Amino acid sequence: MDFGAQSGVPTIGADESEQLLARYGPLAEAVRELIDATIRTQADDATMREATTQVRQVTERLRDGILSDAPGMRYVVDGRPLAWGNAVIGLRNPIAPPLVIEHGGSASLDGGEATLGPPHEHGENGHCWSDFHLGAAYEGPPSLVHGGVSALILDHLLGEAASEGLTKPLFTGTITVKYLRGTPLGPLRAEAWVYRREAIKTYARGHIADSAGVTVEAEGVFIIPAWARESVE
Amino acid sequence: MDFGAQSGVPTIGADESEQLLARYGPLAEAVRELIDATIRTQADDATMREATTQVRQVTERLRDGILSDAPGMRYVVDGRPLAWGNAVIGLRNPIAPPLVIEHGGSASLDGGEATLGPPHEHGENGHCWSDFHLGAAYEGPPSLVHGGVSALILDHLLGEAASEGLTKPLFTGTITVKYLRGTPLGPLRAEAWVYRREAIKTYARGHIADSAGVTVEAEGVFIIPAWARESVE
Repeated sequence: MDFGAQSGVPTIGADESEQLLARYGPLAEAVRELIDATIRTQADDATMREATTQVRQVTERLRDGILSDAPGMRYVVDGRPLAWGNAVIGLRNPIAPPLVIEHGGSASLDGGEATLGPPHEHGENGHCWSDFHLGAAYEGPPSLVHGGVSALILDHLLGEAASEGLTKPLFTGTITVKYLRGTPLGPLRAEAWVYRREAIKTYARGHIADSAGVTVEAEGVFIIPAWARESVE
Repeated sequence: MDFGAQSGVPTIGADESEQLLARYGPLAEAVRELIDATIRTQADDATMREATTQVRQVTERLRDGILSDAPGMRYVVDGRPLAWGNAVIGLRNPIAPPLVIEHGGSASLDGGEATLGPPHEHGENGHCWSDFHLGAAYEGPPSLVHGGVSALILDHLLGEAASEGLTKPLFTGTITVKYLRGTPLGPLRAEAWVYRREAIKTYARGHIADSAGVTVEAEGVFIIPAWARESVE
């Protein structure tokens, strides 16, 4: 994990944000469907050649519109990064499922040390969660989610919990992911919460579950980067 | 991690494999370029609407050719799964970078217990590596690889080392990923090797490096699933 309000990040207002998302969001959604079809199609040679040519033409047209070649996109609205290019939540990134993350609220980051228990209800200790669906693009073993994709999602979700919804700059220090059983492709839920805070370190736990219960657990420590430490040092 | 020679997986020969890859591989490559353009374009409303319509049309045509709705694709050629749908190495999966993994050779899996040192040269202890490039689609913090993407790649690579290039069925038990500094988007190398084997457990280590050195380290234990344990029990 990731992000947080970076210095030098372009800031836009809510109206402009909505307008940009209306312009760029639908293509990302359409490309997600195309990714799934690309993996699963059994079309013949001629159809595949035509499809490939058409996709290249669309790509060329979009590239005519690239004014900057900076990788990724990020804007801040009211202090919260939009992270549209993010590999897990990015609404403009077709490889992101994307996870829509719900935040129940968060404990205060007062710079002191505190040991926090697991949340008993939504809203405590940075608790956040997401209901999402993983299709063919996220496969490892046949019909199961790639173990590394579970790690990707848990790294992100624990980071969201630790950073209070990406409003604090934090990077993953270490994350441990424990696989209890295979995670089936299909509808899933991920949850994460903070269980301990120190000056520059925040400790979070979380898991992924299918309808039968937890499949993967994770525990991680997240660290405030040096450039953002004045407030806690 | 993942895969391994599964019972019930369709087996095809090398000729058919080449033919299928020539048919389906180019579209996945074209879609990878489209993903990058989708994230980075600054095209106007009209161009975006047209691009979205065109992408939907291509998807519809590809879906006409779907005869099975089973998620993912996998074939075995000479005992080695092709894993074309795999989220990290799948040549038919546009979200896979894809990593092309080199195997230097492998230590024997004799079912006994052994403690192995780190590899001193390519070829020892299941040592494998990959040179790859991560672009905008893999971003977390601005211009850096998403921490979870590093975990995804290391889970896969450690699993490749532990499973002798996916020829042995193994699942990740636990993986710990330690972030030393941010990993920049761009050219990267990942490596992994086995440092210990027991009856059903194989322990692997690995890292990701940029031109200045290691950015992320990982350590994991990989387990032979119950259905494949007869040979070692």
